[in-house]
Amino acid sequence: MTLAHGRPYLAIPGPSVMPDRVLNAMHQAAPNIYEGDLVEMVHGLVPDLKAVARTAGDVAIYICNGHGAWEAAASNTLRPGEKVLVLSTGRFAEGWGVVFDRLGAKTEVIDFGKRAAVDLARVEAVLAADSAHEFKAVITVHVDTSTSVKNDIAGIRTVIDKLGHPALFMVDCIASLAVDRFEMDAWGVDVMVAASQKGLMTPPGLGFVFFNDKAAARQPETASFYWDWAPRAKPQLFYQFFGGTAPTHHLFGLREALDMIAEEGGIEAVWARHETLARAVWAAFEVWGQGGPLELNISDPARRSCAVTALRIGGDDGTRLRRWVEDKAGVTLGIGLGMAEPGDPSWHGFFRLGHMGHLNAHMVMGALGAIEAGLVALDIPHGDGALAAAAKVVAEA
Amino acid sequence: MTLAHGRPYLAIPGPSVMPDRVLNAMHQAAPNIYEGDLVEMVHGLVPDLKAVARTAGDVAIYICNGHGAWEAAASNTLRPGEKVLVLSTGRFAEGWGVVFDRLGAKTEVIDFGKRAAVDLARVEAVLAADSAHEFKAVITVHVDTSTSVKNDIAGIRTVIDKLGHPALFMVDCIASLAVDRFEMDAWGVDVMVAASQKGLMTPPGLGFVFFNDKAAARQPETASFYWDWAPRAKPQLFYQFFGGTAPTHHLFGLREALDMIAEEGGIEAVWARHETLARAVWAAFEVWGQGGPLELNISDPARRSCAVTALRIGGDDGTRLRRWVEDKAGVTLGIGLGMAEPGDPSWHGFFRLGHMGHLNAHMVMGALGAIEAGLVALDIPHGDGALAAAAKVVAEA
Amino acid sequence: MTLAHGRPYLAIPGPSVMPDRVLNAMHQAAPNIYEGDLVEMVHGLVPDLKAVARTAGDVAIYICNGHGAWEAAASNTLRPGEKVLVLSTGRFAEGWGVVFDRLGAKTEVIDFGKRAAVDLARVEAVLAADSAHEFKAVITVHVDTSTSVKNDIAGIRTVIDKLGHPALFMVDCIASLAVDRFEMDAWGVDVMVAASQKGLMTPPGLGFVFFNDKAAARQPETASFYWDWAPRAKPQLFYQFFGGTAPTHHLFGLREALDMIAEEGGIEAVWARHETLARAVWAAFEVWGQGGPLELNISDPARRSCAVTALRIGGDDGTRLRRWVEDKAGVTLGIGLGMAEPGDPSWHGFFRLGHMGHLNAHMVMGALGAIEAGLVALDIPHGDGALAAAAKVVAEA
Amino acid sequence: MTLAHGRPYLAIPGPSVMPDRVLNAMHQAAPNIYEGDLVEMVHGLVPDLKAVARTAGDVAIYICNGHGAWEAAASNTLRPGEKVLVLSTGRFAEGWGVVFDRLGAKTEVIDFGKRAAVDLARVEAVLAADSAHEFKAVITVHVDTSTSVKNDIAGIRTVIDKLGHPALFMVDCIASLAVDRFEMDAWGVDVMVAASQKGLMTPPGLGFVFFNDKAAARQPETASFYWDWAPRAKPQLFYQFFGGTAPTHHLFGLREALDMIAEEGGIEAVWARHETLARAVWAAFEVWGQGGPLELNISDPARRSCAVTALRIGGDDGTRLRRWVEDKAGVTLGIGLGMAEPGDPSWHGFFRLGHMGHLNAHMVMGALGAIEAGLVALDIPHGDGALAAAAKVVAEA
Repeated sequence: MTLAHGRPYLAIPGPSVMPDRVLNAMHQAAPNIYEGDLVEMVHGLVPDLKAVARTAGDVAIYICNGHGAWEAAASNTLRPGEKVLVLSTGRFAEGWGVVFDRLGAKTEVIDFGKRAAVDLARVEAVLAADSAHEFKAVITVHVDTSTSVKNDIAGIRTVIDKLGHPALFMVDCIASLAVDRFEMDAWGVDVMVAASQKGLMTPPGLGFVFFNDKAAARQPETASFYWDWAPRAKPQLFYQFFGGTAPTHHLFGLREALDMIAEEGGIEAVWARHETLARAVWAAFEVWGQGGPLELNISDPARRSCAVTALRIGGDDGTRLRRWVEDKAGVTLGIGLGMAEPGDPSWHGFFRLGHMGHLNAHMVMGALGAIEAGLVALDIPHGDGALAAAAKVVAEA
Repeated sequence: MTLAHGRPYLAIPGPSVMPDRVLNAMHQAAPNIYEGDLVEMVHGLVPDLKAVARTAGDVAIYICNGHGAWEAAASNTLRPGEKVLVLSTGRFAEGWGVVFDRLGAKTEVIDFGKRAAVDLARVEAVLAADSAHEFKAVITVHVDTSTSVKNDIAGIRTVIDKLGHPALFMVDCIASLAVDRFEMDAWGVDVMVAASQKGLMTPPGLGFVFFNDKAAARQPETASFYWDWAPRAKPQLFYQFFGGTAPTHHLFGLREALDMIAEEGGIEAVWARHETLARAVWAAFEVWGQGGPLELNISDPARRSCAVTALRIGGDDGTRLRRWVEDKAGVTLGIGLGMAEPGDPSWHGFFRLGHMGHLNAHMVMGALGAIEAGLVALDIPHGDGALAAAAKVVAEA
Repeated sequence: MTLAHGRPYLAIPGPSVMPDRVLNAMHQAAPNIYEGDLVEMVHGLVPDLKAVARTAGDVAIYICNGHGAWEAAASNTLRPGEKVLVLSTGRFAEGWGVVFDRLGAKTEVIDFGKRAAVDLARVEAVLAADSAHEFKAVITVHVDTSTSVKNDIAGIRTVIDKLGHPALFMVDCIASLAVDRFEMDAWGVDVMVAASQKGLMTPPGLGFVFFNDKAAARQPETASFYWDWAPRAKPQLFYQFFGGTAPTHHLFGLREALDMIAEEGGIEAVWARHETLARAVWAAFEVWGQGGPLELNISDPARRSCAVTALRIGGDDGTRLRRWVEDKAGVTLGIGLGMAEPGDPSWHGFFRLGHMGHLNAHMVMGALGAIEAGLVALDIPHGDGALAAAAKVVAEA
Repeated sequence: MTLAHGRPYLAIPGPSVMPDRVLNAMHQAAPNIYEGDLVEMVHGLVPDLKAVARTAGDVAIYICNGHGAWEAAASNTLRPGEKVLVLSTGRFAEGWGVVFDRLGAKTEVIDFGKRAAVDLARVEAVLAADSAHEFKAVITVHVDTSTSVKNDIAGIRTVIDKLGHPALFMVDCIASLAVDRFEMDAWGVDVMVAASQKGLMTPPGLGFVFFNDKAAARQPETASFYWDWAPRAKPQLFYQFFGGTAPTHHLFGLREALDMIAEEGGIEAVWARHETLARAVWAAFEVWGQGGPLELNISDPARRSCAVTALRIGGDDGTRLRRWVEDKAGVTLGIGLGMAEPGDPSWHGFFRLGHMGHLNAHMVMGALGAIEAGLVALDIPHGDGALAAAAKVVAEA
């Protein structure tokens, strides 16, 4: 018997749940792309995007996914042959490094494993050894969606500054923007990349590169037409915003999503909501873990993302639990991406819960309730009182 | 701080949550109402509706709400001056009686209070005393949405048959159709009324009257043009299905909803899902009630509806809890309709949770989780372990 | 070969083309029906509806179609056995008369045929003969959708007043409201009925009865619960607006439609647009008629509705043309409803073009262009220059 | 007075009118991007796309606009320093050349002006002179959206083959795919680029690069991660289809659009419809031109695109007519892009009419009808009988 016939809940770490308002905003006839409402609207998007990113710098909007945004950022900062330092805490910083490599960079990766954040001391050691300043960029992720670690971005900048190293500091906030607190300017980030389908609650299809004057000044001549951020950030003609035809329907959706953020009280309110709901999630997983194999991948709460939680459970219980929760309760959990490879049997021992974007207390409690039912149904040992613990966090908000 | 910014959940006892598929199906251009796809489609709706009602009888579809369906049923069965026996277990049977009165009936109400089902012995006594068979109809509700009681419809029929009383047996299934098990033909119901916005998961605006040959044979000549069920049930021209212009967009929605029921495995599967989810709800409320003022309005589980649960909590905690859960967690609970009157201060001591239609395990767990958080936040005493108890019911499904 | 694959255009005389904005507004989750935004919104609808009807009187909103609105009006004005004078100019006034009959009225029909408006002299003669004032109501249609005639409503009132006859004057504006100029109060109409799916651009499912104090004072006690207009017009509780559950999604749609009317500049602007576009339609049909069998059903332009045009073409060319235009060009024309009966072979010699509601110049020119192509393709003789004549009317607007 | 209040019609040369079915298909919750329905669906898209392009080769789908597809094609074919021959007949082949330049190519442009197609003799002369085979690619557009010229693609291939020149032949079908007959394999095209928002009736946001084995074999190692067509065309993991996160909602839309093409009878039927409707458009413009300044930009019908028609009218009548037609009749025409520059006063003497994609006879007749009304209203001299001429083409289809 299945109890899944009702409203499906996609609780993977992106794409996140799209608000009805966003989908509704996208349900409209094609607009004129030469003049009129759309043109006006796009001009208004820019300051709202910058407010979300906490920057007074520039933003280039791309029709692409997150990987495209990576390439855009790389294309505007790299000269072939230059060295890039990659601070890897999961799958995604390294993935970004590959994009740099393909453009001709020489990347050097410091791998901090899959259960820990960037270790500032190791970064300092490596950068200190680069007295020739061969590293032209230091790249990392704010949140690694695969491991759910959240790196100390301000701390990394402090290290760079302490050494007086001139490398650009480039950060991937694809999973974290509009979820985890992120202060681009205050934290000294030179280039930041993001995408539409997570905290921004809009279907996949838009990538964003935010950059400051220092990054702009270093732009190589080799930037390609499509990735060149200069005309996109400071267009003289409307089509330059998008290097061609505007992504009309995504823009309608993004406008609505930004309005929703404003109506909630702005980005600070959005961060606070995510932070509380994430604590509710962690409270439940910690209790379950006390009586069985379930374990939060990141043990230090300060280094956990508020956007996604990666779990270790062992055996094939990750896959079994995902299947049960989807088939019986209508919740789709995320696979254990990047914790092991699909062919590896240990892959079935991981899963992830996304909790980003259009998310409120009953959604979190519902997903956790479904997981508890699954643990019981599948006879997976677990501690008692997890749901009550989560509810308590919600109650005290 | 609010944790409500996410997908809202309307957990009132109707209108229920409309599936995206239903809303999507309604989002289309106006169709031709004289020929073509719409005409074909409506012919196909009729057997599917009858299957949901478990009847080989007829159905008349009305553009109206539930009160209109009441009037349609009354208009097709009553001659002015006739007597009607009303078996009242809350607010709605009595409300239907008023509709009969306004058409010229003389209703006699047996009031079973707000916390109990119809007492078969009392019905038997009253009908036995009616040796002249002055009661032309016995009317009641399957489920009273205000009290959440579920009446023993088959039992009432047994009483009527035992006495050989010829009255029509007419039942309101507005809240229960496609939620609580209901067997129109097997249970001997002559006339049944329902509406679109609860178990049928379609916006308010369609009413249904199902009737058998016995009821059809008694139709008075006074039935009005609009309410006359004969041409609607056996139309010769398409417009007669609806006594005029077809409710085009509601029909698109209803078609999709009936498809969803079929895809789930038919009405038996739908009943089973609701029954399990209702038991999960009751399990939670029972545990909370063990440590505080919360009390299920209907103590006998066999007489509780699977569509809605009415709660008593006292003081103004019903209203406080509703407000908290909506403002902080994004769940809208139902007011305590019919348990007290709005002006009466005790009104604030009740609330209801709807659990009908497009409903799955995580929705139920989410609503219950939000309520637990509210009880904690508002310092309302309650037993521990309610969410775990609900999850256990889900797990064992 | 078909050239129909593109945006379909339903050019029947109702339901009319639903604006994307209206359909979009209806595409939302079910709202709370006890408090909140919906309740606020409905209070705001009432004055906007009255403004469209040009009345300071009352309005009752019903979940029903136009036939239901007829019955609502009849139910609130008629006592069984009373006499009603029906002024028939097609199919619909007579249809309304049947609704009265079914409620116990004795209707007397003056039939003005299918090609002429109400003849005031004949009305005067009949009413003058009714010195006993047995006629309690005079009913007619503003526009008869079947014949496309538009009656002189102000003129009929003048006749009634001249005779000092106390009968209520009741008018069906189902086809004409928000299309043809109509001044309820200035023209002395006591009761007016309308529906959502024509000039109001909202799917079928809402009926409206507007009434003044004189009509209200005559309300019989026999009005049924559902049709009783008093609580709907002056509700003390929200549910009384709709005699039960609110038609939530239709209300969202209607709100949007009324906003569109306001944004266009109000009802005067809407009338002016329809009047000009209707003249464009007539100009084309007149030219075609000069060279062939096509003939406007109503020869006097002053008596033609701006909502629909009924055409006579003879033989089976009406049906042939309708089929061609739909299959080849994507335009669905209206059948010749009421000009002949479906069984009658002459039925195929008629068709209608709806031009009401969400309608602009290119839609009209497109429908006419498709008809011209059909006339050519089917070798139906017709005058030259029809499209140019229509374009000229548009140009001079 | 405006007659524009009704269904707006965006008749610019892209984005084209999005079918309700496509927008509806896009209106759904975010799907799982790791497994399930979406994954299945994408595999099915590929053969359908190839069928539309008439190729047995490969296709890479990109999240980007047409300019992105240009860059994708260039990135997969070009080595820095290589020479590319650009055959320019308006604005877009030259635009593509700029993208090549930015990637390091050395482009040489043959400019055929704005009113003529590629002259095969001149191409032959240039290629024949390139005995060293320095040109690694010959690039051109099938249809130039700015001038509405349609080039003889098969003819250009014949020239290349005749000379035995090994250059890749690369064609931009952004404006023409699924509109103008195009036979990728039969005509010997090695690389073809297209986008979603024209003949494919899906919002802007998807680009396509089709390529054959010859092109694949020449892929340079310098292709960037995002543009690399190899994994997209032959993915081993689902995410490789899109070089990262899938464009979920655009894929829903594209699937529906391809279904619509299939339901119409396949791409041959789609071409035939466009060809006939384009002839109707030309017929009208030719008649108008006989009595005034209006002139089709391309005089040879064989070289006119069926997707768009560029017009010359002189003075500021292009802009005046566009304004009138939009404000008074609800049709938005295209600006005279590329015929003159916005600052140049002659710019106001051009306009374009798009007629691509979701287009049927009444839409064409409606747009032409609006233009005729505009010519009359603005006193722009024009020949008589244009609409009748267009209707005649439709009639004879």
